[in-house]
Amino acid sequence: MKKQLILLAGLVLLPSLALAEEAVVTEIAYILNSFSFLISGVLVMWMAAGFAMLEAGLVRSKNVATICLKNISLYSIAGILYYLIGYNLMYSGVDGGFMGSFGLWGADDAAALGGDFAGGYSAGSDWFFQMVFVATAASVVSGTVAERIKLWPFLGFVVFLTAIIYPIQGAWSWGGGWLSEMGFSDYAGSTIVHSVGGWAALTGAIILGARTGKFGKDGRVNPLPGSNMPLATLGTFILWMGWFGFNGGSVLALGSADAVVEMSNVYLNTNLAAAGGVVAAMIMLQLLYKKVDLSMALNGALAGLVSITAEPASPSPGMAVIIGAIGGILVVLAIPLLDKLKIDDVVGAVSVHLVCGIWGTLAVPLTNSDASFVAQFVGIIAVGAFVAIASTLAWMALKFTVGIRVSKEVEMNGCDASELGMEAYPDFRGGSSGMSSY
Amino acid sequence: MKKQLILLAGLVLLPSLALAEEAVVTEIAYILNSFSFLISGVLVMWMAAGFAMLEAGLVRSKNVATICLKNISLYSIAGILYYLIGYNLMYSGVDGGFMGSFGLWGADDAAALGGDFAGGYSAGSDWFFQMVFVATAASVVSGTVAERIKLWPFLGFVVFLTAIIYPIQGAWSWGGGWLSEMGFSDYAGSTIVHSVGGWAALTGAIILGARTGKFGKDGRVNPLPGSNMPLATLGTFILWMGWFGFNGGSVLALGSADAVVEMSNVYLNTNLAAAGGVVAAMIMLQLLYKKVDLSMALNGALAGLVSITAEPASPSPGMAVIIGAIGGILVVLAIPLLDKLKIDDVVGAVSVHLVCGIWGTLAVPLTNSDASFVAQFVGIIAVGAFVAIASTLAWMALKFTVGIRVSKEVEMNGCDASELGMEAYPDFRGGSSGMSSY
Amino acid sequence: MKKQLILLAGLVLLPSLALAEEAVVTEIAYILNSFSFLISGVLVMWMAAGFAMLEAGLVRSKNVATICLKNISLYSIAGILYYLIGYNLMYSGVDGGFMGSFGLWGADDAAALGGDFAGGYSAGSDWFFQMVFVATAASVVSGTVAERIKLWPFLGFVVFLTAIIYPIQGAWSWGGGWLSEMGFSDYAGSTIVHSVGGWAALTGAIILGARTGKFGKDGRVNPLPGSNMPLATLGTFILWMGWFGFNGGSVLALGSADAVVEMSNVYLNTNLAAAGGVVAAMIMLQLLYKKVDLSMALNGALAGLVSITAEPASPSPGMAVIIGAIGGILVVLAIPLLDKLKIDDVVGAVSVHLVCGIWGTLAVPLTNSDASFVAQFVGIIAVGAFVAIASTLAWMALKFTVGIRVSKEVEMNGCDASELGMEAYPDFRGGSSGMSSY
Repeated sequence: MKKQLILLAGLVLLPSLALAEEAVVTEIAYILNSFSFLISGVLVMWMAAGFAMLEAGLVRSKNVATICLKNISLYSIAGILYYLIGYNLMYSGVDGGFMGSFGLWGADDAAALGGDFAGGYSAGSDWFFQMVFVATAASVVSGTVAERIKLWPFLGFVVFLTAIIYPIQGAWSWGGGWLSEMGFSDYAGSTIVHSVGGWAALTGAIILGARTGKFGKDGRVNPLPGSNMPLATLGTFILWMGWFGFNGGSVLALGSADAVVEMSNVYLNTNLAAAGGVVAAMIMLQLLYKKVDLSMALNGALAGLVSITAEPASPSPGMAVIIGAIGGILVVLAIPLLDKLKIDDVVGAVSVHLVCGIWGTLAVPLTNSDASFVAQFVGIIAVGAFVAIASTLAWMALKFTVGIRVSKEVEMNGCDASELGMEAYPDFRGGSSGMSSY
Repeated sequence: MKKQLILLAGLVLLPSLALAEEAVVTEIAYILNSFSFLISGVLVMWMAAGFAMLEAGLVRSKNVATICLKNISLYSIAGILYYLIGYNLMYSGVDGGFMGSFGLWGADDAAALGGDFAGGYSAGSDWFFQMVFVATAASVVSGTVAERIKLWPFLGFVVFLTAIIYPIQGAWSWGGGWLSEMGFSDYAGSTIVHSVGGWAALTGAIILGARTGKFGKDGRVNPLPGSNMPLATLGTFILWMGWFGFNGGSVLALGSADAVVEMSNVYLNTNLAAAGGVVAAMIMLQLLYKKVDLSMALNGALAGLVSITAEPASPSPGMAVIIGAIGGILVVLAIPLLDKLKIDDVVGAVSVHLVCGIWGTLAVPLTNSDASFVAQFVGIIAVGAFVAIASTLAWMALKFTVGIRVSKEVEMNGCDASELGMEAYPDFRGGSSGMSSY
Repeated sequence: MKKQLILLAGLVLLPSLALAEEAVVTEIAYILNSFSFLISGVLVMWMAAGFAMLEAGLVRSKNVATICLKNISLYSIAGILYYLIGYNLMYSGVDGGFMGSFGLWGADDAAALGGDFAGGYSAGSDWFFQMVFVATAASVVSGTVAERIKLWPFLGFVVFLTAIIYPIQGAWSWGGGWLSEMGFSDYAGSTIVHSVGGWAALTGAIILGARTGKFGKDGRVNPLPGSNMPLATLGTFILWMGWFGFNGGSVLALGSADAVVEMSNVYLNTNLAAAGGVVAAMIMLQLLYKKVDLSMALNGALAGLVSITAEPASPSPGMAVIIGAIGGILVVLAIPLLDKLKIDDVVGAVSVHLVCGIWGTLAVPLTNSDASFVAQFVGIIAVGAFVAIASTLAWMALKFTVGIRVSKEVEMNGCDASELGMEAYPDFRGGSSGMSSY
């Protein structure tokens, strides 16, 4: 045990104690920094459940089992791929450039186990935190393209997104690449995680086309209401909870007063931005439509959360409410706009994660004097262009090989019955099998 | 305190070292104290989801989306109002009196960032923890008055409750006001949080009146069964989980052995009191009715939790089981009593949070020799009288201006269809639209 | 940085400081070790909700309220019994033998409160962590024997399991008994927790017999599909999340760099093993049946988690994926095998917790050179034989006294209507009351 060593060292004192002393203090910082990654990572992992419940609540009952399966499998695939390829591509030897190297991730905590805590945290804790982040980008996609995409081709896209697209653009900023050298600032990933998911989702929705029956020939937009609203509410609460880990863990430290003060700001701003998003969305709905709507309020919460993600540390609490509230307003405007463009986004993920991801990234210089609008703008454009193009190529490659869209018959009967041979709610008559809302 | 011992040891060293040393130790305590607030606060935030699921499971399907919307919006409003008004009214300059000052909350962590950790924890972490507490009181209300209250007037009441009522009575005790000087002891808020919600809910239920059809003209009580029992079960588990943060975070420290020993007691007593509540409620049900009932068992768990909240640190484990068990028995007796009084409490929140809140507060002197029955009694009466009167005024003001109750037609069709224009479970025939249980 | 100041100050030191210093450093380790138990314990407690949701999703709607009640009451009973009997039987004075002593658990933190931190963590935090573990074993049983067991006799079995069976076999290994002296190695309980639940479930399923209608006279196996698949998915995600506490807390320390490095490995291996289980199960399903299935994929995740539980610290990430993947394959093979043997396991818990519990225990020596296949094998056999025999005796004693199986009529109408007098989903026509799938 280290403590006995210190005791021994202390008995013969002199400079050697001072060194032991220093080592101990740093060991505690090392422990706390690592522990923050672990606990925060658990909260981010939990967001996978949040996306699953949100999407399961917002699709029709005939597609619920399929969306659940997509969510748990995409999370699994994302973690394994990030181990096999993603992490090194994002973080290993980027050095101002465009991407890292290929190779398996391997923990190296030998220095710390030998008493050298200069790394600041255990390699495993950092990697765990990074690994759970990747899945978030993929979760955004599954909601948008739900109810008409084939299972395995979707998972094929997830492989490409989590192993190649996400890590390469991540290397540009968090990996120490060209965008970070330019001064692009994105604290926890409004652009790097959420917009990436949003662009991938948007290209997928366009290439895949709308669900049959969503857009009438007369230009009418038919609502295809979600089948389980309390589940969608639960999903939103889970995401809200998990976001404390998402943003709070992105302080990347806990071992100093500075770090914990910053983490406190991040927690309270995250909470207030989400609250601002809910309230602003509800007021907007009441003003525009004379009625509020639960799914819009839920999206308001998520909009606030995405909006604050690019800079949750520097805003004052009041500013956090405002940043979140603008997100909530944007999402209320963006969702019908996408409908007008005949882009069918089942859960509103593009409006939440892409639109508010852009807004949040642009808002950084308002409160963080180290950021510039130019760098933010370049980052948004560069990441957007890369992800949109790479995603389009991936979707197209899948479309013209294995195909990505289920047949009309499968769509009508529901993916659950046709692709999985099961029902999500077999006991509830009028449930998935006998749907009339198609 | 251990730190004083070290400081003494340091005094025979070279003074400069002693100071530096002390600073380091205190920095770690500062980090741990703050981190405890953050993690505990996340668990308390999560209770908002617990209330949402509990209530969504216990209302009829035609009102599920509305109750979900109320829960997420009341949580949002509570946080923003506590920032705008509540916190300072509760904590700023109360000084033995009746209330603090008006004004925005503002973080002040300058001292800590300058190396002075005497505050013990970051201002932001403390505020975050306080902010999530407020919503709990409001969540209690939403369950009781569900299925017949208008959305916006309800949210108006939440504004008043979280900005004015809760902070003023909170100033009396936790804010350092007259009740705390009297020796009133309420560790995590059996009275200060739960009874406050309970009184506000009780006055609301009386002023609002019962749901149509709940009480037959022949004196019969018609059960209007909850629509989704696993969701109610989930909500109870979420609340149970969150309660570790609610009670555990109320140690207000983690940076010393004393604090963590106390926190350990709090955790295990919280768990055992809830367990005692479940088992006692089930035995009571079997004895009284020859049948157990899930929703009563769930309320037994919550009853145990509310009962231990006023003093989770000092009871022995066996005593914690007993305190919780008495709560479980009380709730089994109180729920039919309220029915007899023709007070319609949709989820049993008055029985759980008010009745057991009173019991828990009275039980404090049984295990905590610093508390007296007189002070506890005065606290219960004073807080009860203030909240009951203030809530009545607020409900009345809303009733005679904007109105608080939906029309009979809206009630029959369900708030979801009429107020939100949606259904919570549109695919399940016989669901919210075609309700016959009205 | 503050640390540099200490380094400078340390250069002029004296021995007395070193001693004071030692006390302080150890106090911090004591706090961190205890806090790890508390936070990990909350995550393990949360697994009770996971089992409840998983099982509520996988039974038919007519038995959903009953399974919810069983889950919350078994968790409550397990905690109280572990306090009354279990803990001391498992940990007090086992000393190489077969069991500890009878008696109430009592916290003893006097040493720590007096400034002696040699215990390493607070007694209360350790006990809290142990208490939440017990319930896991009982939760495994409830799923297997669902839909046909009487409530109170089931709870009687839970008393016996958590007060007697689990603690005695636990004494052999974790309590310092004969198995631990032999070198049996089971990090977080693949055998000690999961197989124990699995053996108790298996004997229960055999003695109780299959649900009416499950196995046709022509040898056909009739699927009796789960009523709420998103709930089952949620339960799986909850269990996955909770498992970080289950395995991570089993490091039993956080107060040194060694501990946090180990905990980091445990977290990432736990995540990757679950991911491996999902992907392997899905590939197996596609190969064997040309179709994937949600409930099998969920069981794949749980299979991966159980498989890694015996040794989550020493495998490399790639090895963790493989260990989990083999678990996922095993579960896909074991579930139909049990059907062939006409053993009716409603949720697949025997396949997940017993089969993969054995596999995980056998896999320990592959990566941990301190373990031997012989000791692992002896442990599996000894625990299995003891639990199978003791459980059989308990089930038989219950069967021939109070009876364990509900009547055919109760089974047909559902336990909810008959045993509780309620419905889980009363608003959904075709729900639990009007079941036709019996």
